[in-house]
Amino acid sequence: MPDINELRDVVRGRVLTDPDDMAPFLTDWRRIWTGRALAVVQPDDAEVVAAVVRWCGDHGVAIVPQGGNTGLSGGATPLAVGACIVLSLARMKAIRTVDAVNNTITVEAGCILADVQAAAQDVNRLFPLSLAAEGSCTIGGNLATNAGGTGVLRYGNMRDLCLGLEVVTADGAVWDGLRALRKDNTGYDLRDLFIGSEGTLGVITAAVLKLFPPSVGRCVAVAALECPANALDLLHLAQTHLSGGLTGFELFSDFCLELVLHHREGARRPVEESAPWYVLIEASSATDADLANEAMQSLLEAGFEQGLVIDAALSSSEAQAEALWALREDISEAQGEAGKTIKHDVALPLSQLADFIIESEAALDARFPEVRTGVFGHVGDGNLHFNVLPRDGTPDTIVESLTGPVNKLVHDIVVARGGSISAEHGLGVLRRDESARYKSEVEMAMMRCIKHALDPRGIMNPDKLLAHDVGSLVGQGGK
Amino acid sequence: MPDINELRDVVRGRVLTDPDDMAPFLTDWRRIWTGRALAVVQPDDAEVVAAVVRWCGDHGVAIVPQGGNTGLSGGATPLAVGACIVLSLARMKAIRTVDAVNNTITVEAGCILADVQAAAQDVNRLFPLSLAAEGSCTIGGNLATNAGGTGVLRYGNMRDLCLGLEVVTADGAVWDGLRALRKDNTGYDLRDLFIGSEGTLGVITAAVLKLFPPSVGRCVAVAALECPANALDLLHLAQTHLSGGLTGFELFSDFCLELVLHHREGARRPVEESAPWYVLIEASSATDADLANEAMQSLLEAGFEQGLVIDAALSSSEAQAEALWALREDISEAQGEAGKTIKHDVALPLSQLADFIIESEAALDARFPEVRTGVFGHVGDGNLHFNVLPRDGTPDTIVESLTGPVNKLVHDIVVARGGSISAEHGLGVLRRDESARYKSEVEMAMMRCIKHALDPRGIMNPDKLLAHDVGSLVGQGGK
Repeated sequence: MPDINELRDVVRGRVLTDPDDMAPFLTDWRRIWTGRALAVVQPDDAEVVAAVVRWCGDHGVAIVPQGGNTGLSGGATPLAVGACIVLSLARMKAIRTVDAVNNTITVEAGCILADVQAAAQDVNRLFPLSLAAEGSCTIGGNLATNAGGTGVLRYGNMRDLCLGLEVVTADGAVWDGLRALRKDNTGYDLRDLFIGSEGTLGVITAAVLKLFPPSVGRCVAVAALECPANALDLLHLAQTHLSGGLTGFELFSDFCLELVLHHREGARRPVEESAPWYVLIEASSATDADLANEAMQSLLEAGFEQGLVIDAALSSSEAQAEALWALREDISEAQGEAGKTIKHDVALPLSQLADFIIESEAALDARFPEVRTGVFGHVGDGNLHFNVLPRDGTPDTIVESLTGPVNKLVHDIVVARGGSISAEHGLGVLRRDESARYKSEVEMAMMRCIKHALDPRGIMNPDKLLAHDVGSLVGQGGK
Repeated sequence: MPDINELRDVVRGRVLTDPDDMAPFLTDWRRIWTGRALAVVQPDDAEVVAAVVRWCGDHGVAIVPQGGNTGLSGGATPLAVGACIVLSLARMKAIRTVDAVNNTITVEAGCILADVQAAAQDVNRLFPLSLAAEGSCTIGGNLATNAGGTGVLRYGNMRDLCLGLEVVTADGAVWDGLRALRKDNTGYDLRDLFIGSEGTLGVITAAVLKLFPPSVGRCVAVAALECPANALDLLHLAQTHLSGGLTGFELFSDFCLELVLHHREGARRPVEESAPWYVLIEASSATDADLANEAMQSLLEAGFEQGLVIDAALSSSEAQAEALWALREDISEAQGEAGKTIKHDVALPLSQLADFIIESEAALDARFPEVRTGVFGHVGDGNLHFNVLPRDGTPDTIVESLTGPVNKLVHDIVVARGGSISAEHGLGVLRRDESARYKSEVEMAMMRCIKHALDPRGIMNPDKLLAHDVGSLVGQGGK
């Protein structure tokens, strides 16, 4: 076993080895996975990260990069076996530069997402990535998992919002790829290779992100619908009526709404009569809130005329807009309070989405009468959080025992319809083996090939995203 | 030398070996590079491409993929030495599926860009990639070079427009990565690795591309300005006033306009008095042409008020809109007619762009009085075609002799200001060695590492994008 005290000479920053100090870094926030580590290391800058990586490479110690530890797939939690360190980027939180003319911000990996949003706002710009964990998740983690959220429809996911990266490679060199350019065709797209690679190819230490003009005003509506197919027709209408002003389009079932009304004090049904499904639509304007309101009204009128919309509520103030958004945003927590949830983070071609819901719900009803679905998600991106919850009286232990078979049933249908079993949460350890089963051997071979090429010693977050390579000595405590 | 006739048994499609038949494939359209090949092979589908790649791998024959042969960097032209075939994708031109609900189209690599635009229009959708060669360039080439053009500001470049790929790998397997999803976080981003790799990692045979709601109406303006800095301030105003409705923002100097007025019959100056610089602005609406016109008027009023705009012309018909666009689009050809041109396709952070023009023009004036600049480009993306032309009386031979030193002067300033020396044209052979000189050793090492990992025999378009690897035996006629 290598002497971890040597690392104290390498790291300017912090090296934690006390079990109590390390504990918060060794378990994910949902407390699903707990692992072990020789130390938690928190460097101050990229050169120190590089020195740590070199030391680890020399001593056969694996590295688990970690940001805000808010991931949902276990990608940032160490495993229960093997010699590794947790490399926490939490101290690298500088906002290096804000360039309002270029609409870019250069930040370090440990920056909290909400702090980046605030820094953009300070120069009258918008950083549009928005997701539930934004108060504690970090930019490095957002990049490593190619995070999504509610702003993807208009602004894209994290991949689309990033222009350049600084990365410490697996052999401990610092790559300065911090380009602030909209166009650059000078070689292989290394940036997008590191984005979404979940720390398995190198450590992202800083990034150049895109900024946008802020919205001056917005109008939010919740429309009651008969079925998901109508939601897709309404989406098409919204894309035509609102064009670039369409900044949100979210679907949720009546069951999801009921959960929120039950578990959230003050939450009110937005329309008089309940309907099977709802969509939340957000229209924004960079110049004039009234414009957003007019466009939304014209959209909803068209929706009524075409028989798509049963009823709708429209915000006439920012407070009302927030209250409508809360109905959607509180679903995940309300589901958690209602019992054990079997989660699926799937994406489908929009043309497959309505039939996918019908087919999956029917198949689940037939095979697993103990559970029912609670479906919501970023339907504008084809992304559903197709969650499965216990029916009244079903104990958590039953739900737990059904997780594997339910996952398989749902994911088989997703893949048969050309979908993805991890739309925005990444693979980590949660979906690693399932994903490998669904992917072609050609694709798996290319992924392994790239892993070996960029991390030949296998020290970067081994066993995440790709299964452990038998040939690798790393994580076993020595070369 | 391998017996090329064996290939005839492998290829369903065409194998050309007659020198006259091959000639058009061996020279780029600007007639800068001419190479040699054992044959020109035109397969019918991906499985045949795979068989050709396997045959070439077995016989140590290099492969130069070629689409419409409209590239500007020599990436699709064979070299003068070595044993290779040109793999023309021209016969793989099927539009496989159009999915209007999902806003996607799946096309083969040999499809002409204009045909894809037309197929989208047939279902009332827009495929927004637009560039001068659209009547003859192919989707495969657009992907291999991550093509740009005039639509990037609103819709992104080819990378942003592609959801999935079918690729024949360097060992002759077909990878079906034809996903039609907006979100998919299941492993490494192989798609973006192949996009922009100029045929050096594999052969793109088909792609899933994004479609958008079409514009119903547009308004085009040409505004006269004092300097590029004012263009950038006006861009910021336009992004705020027009938001997602801003679909074009192009800069050109008065000298460029003069060339077009001189060389194009019927071209007329859009404003009464000449000014040093002009921007062309396009506003689009998905619902209402009048809305685009109103938004443009309000933008230009704000531009006048802030002292940015000297004078402006506004289209009040589609014919006028086209006439204004022609002033910008004809610049490249008008420059060609005016004499030998030294081209630069550079990108800069917007905050560096105005100073870059001032610094580069001053440096060129001081060192090379025989030439002058003719600057135009997609300024909204920070992308300038910073071309250099002879002053009256300077013979082409002088311009030719100055190409290297002028390139170096301009590109040194670009790189010092954080820019790119190939914004949208790729490296090919034209910018390969220059790019390598400017890039860090860390980045070059990662690129070589990926090349070796995915194309270990070095058969895929050797010597393009990356310089020839001494260890490779391929292209020398045998293993």
